[in-house]
Amino acid sequence: MTQNSLIAVVGAGSVGGYYGGRLAEHGHDVHFLLRSDYQAVRREGLQVRSCHGDFSFPPEKLRIYDDVRKMPKADLVLVTLKATSNDAYESLIRPLLKEDSAILTLQNGLGNERRLAELFGGRRVLGGMAFVCINRLKPGVIHHIDHGTIRLGEFDGGPSPRATRIAEMFNASKVKCEVLPDLRYGRWLKLVWNIPFNGLGAVMDCTTDQLIATEAGVRLVSELMAEVIATARAAGVQLPDGLVEKQIEQTLSMGAYKSSMQVDRETGRPMEIEAILGEPLRVAREAGVRTPRLEAVYAMARVLNGDDPPAA
Amino acid sequence: MTQNSLIAVVGAGSVGGYYGGRLAEHGHDVHFLLRSDYQAVRREGLQVRSCHGDFSFPPEKLRIYDDVRKMPKADLVLVTLKATSNDAYESLIRPLLKEDSAILTLQNGLGNERRLAELFGGRRVLGGMAFVCINRLKPGVIHHIDHGTIRLGEFDGGPSPRATRIAEMFNASKVKCEVLPDLRYGRWLKLVWNIPFNGLGAVMDCTTDQLIATEAGVRLVSELMAEVIATARAAGVQLPDGLVEKQIEQTLSMGAYKSSMQVDRETGRPMEIEAILGEPLRVAREAGVRTPRLEAVYAMARVLNGDDPPAA
Repeated sequence: MTQNSLIAVVGAGSVGGYYGGRLAEHGHDVHFLLRSDYQAVRREGLQVRSCHGDFSFPPEKLRIYDDVRKMPKADLVLVTLKATSNDAYESLIRPLLKEDSAILTLQNGLGNERRLAELFGGRRVLGGMAFVCINRLKPGVIHHIDHGTIRLGEFDGGPSPRATRIAEMFNASKVKCEVLPDLRYGRWLKLVWNIPFNGLGAVMDCTTDQLIATEAGVRLVSELMAEVIATARAAGVQLPDGLVEKQIEQTLSMGAYKSSMQVDRETGRPMEIEAILGEPLRVAREAGVRTPRLEAVYAMARVLNGDDPPAA
Repeated sequence: MTQNSLIAVVGAGSVGGYYGGRLAEHGHDVHFLLRSDYQAVRREGLQVRSCHGDFSFPPEKLRIYDDVRKMPKADLVLVTLKATSNDAYESLIRPLLKEDSAILTLQNGLGNERRLAELFGGRRVLGGMAFVCINRLKPGVIHHIDHGTIRLGEFDGGPSPRATRIAEMFNASKVKCEVLPDLRYGRWLKLVWNIPFNGLGAVMDCTTDQLIATEAGVRLVSELMAEVIATARAAGVQLPDGLVEKQIEQTLSMGAYKSSMQVDRETGRPMEIEAILGEPLRVAREAGVRTPRLEAVYAMARVLNGDDPPAA
């Protein structure tokens, strides 16, 4: 990426608004595709209250669109849709692509890169994880509370000059960004936390601290983590020893935290069940790894989601 | 039992207050052991609003006690404690026993009769299930909403003259009561409903109708029921074909209902986890029946209960 690259942000909720906003703040040519928030941002612009420094754009300084067909082709497509909207990949991303466009998904969970690769070719695709505490207070108003590092990597293979250029672009725009030697390692590492704390948090309606306040809770969370680690191993990703204890210890130090899936449950929004629970479960089943805890959490989460898509 | 039999009610919450009250209303010599509600009932007496006809007792017409050592020996001890208080069996029941006292537990779940039998001898023990919708509105004020049938049987063996006499006593006191040919059959039949709807209802904080509103929910509830039926079979109890479908159909017709364990969760009271989930799970494990759904629900319920007693 260069300073002249054209960047399209698909799904400008809190993550898309924040990271796309930082790039625009630092002079990049960023075009935002919005859906539900379009009218509000058209009127009010974008405001970000951030622990790394506030910034805002009046409407006339923002390139926003409510229809992808009105947008220019992009050098980099930044995908920040909620993973429950992945059925819209084809219609929302295809029109933005030219010969050498790259696609970077910062979405939660497993399977997003693979699905993008199936649709648009693996050589275009990068994946990244945003380690960030961020809320959308209302349309166009984002509160960046803490952290913010992005870790990204190529879907096909290891580090690349392209990944390094994208990381440099973020690092020059107040966003700490690291290139992962192995994206799958990073994804599975994050799932070891996400599956118990998002999964149990949502189905039991418990904050992170409630889940590990008792020995029974630490045992249950540890069992789920062990299932994820065994599944990762079967998928060829060897996670480090002592990971379970380390993640529980770090989570204890966080205090009461509501995972995104718990917040989605409480606010009646769709939960990212397939990306966070269903895809890893399918990997486990295909590899013949027994994951009874994950099976149960997934089954319960599907009941709560209510919409009953085809089962894993 | 005869009209002159002395009846002790141990644990006079809604179930003990209602059934003991009906017997007292019909001229039986009923003595109530109360704990937290003693002072209020001492002042205000007992009031029952019942779909089968209201009744009440002023304090001076009630035989109530706050200490079992002040009570006379009983011909029949009616145990209506919450199953979370079963550690108090020895101290609350032993002082009431004479040579031929019978003990009838109307508590929820599995294992109550066995534990009573271990402490006091199996020949004394009967078990019963109260099929009743009942609430304690405040100390001494009970609201009997619907149903009310008791089904009871001997812990050791089949029907007995004693069981028949107890049933006749209830039937003559406005309480429909049937003698079960096989108490264990009745217990397991009830567990087929209780385990999914109390268990999932509590850990997911869902009413019965929410649990079976989707195909995913019907599937999850059915899987749990199938685990209970398989466990019952391994324990020598053959439940009827078509039971899962029938129970789900009946539950659909009930509308929104909060199970007792869900209510306990919401009000912060201890849930009857061991009686409803833990004991059946131990039976499954000992018989080598795989019950992954029950394992998961039990583990989650223990986390919510917070008190972390020794694990099953």
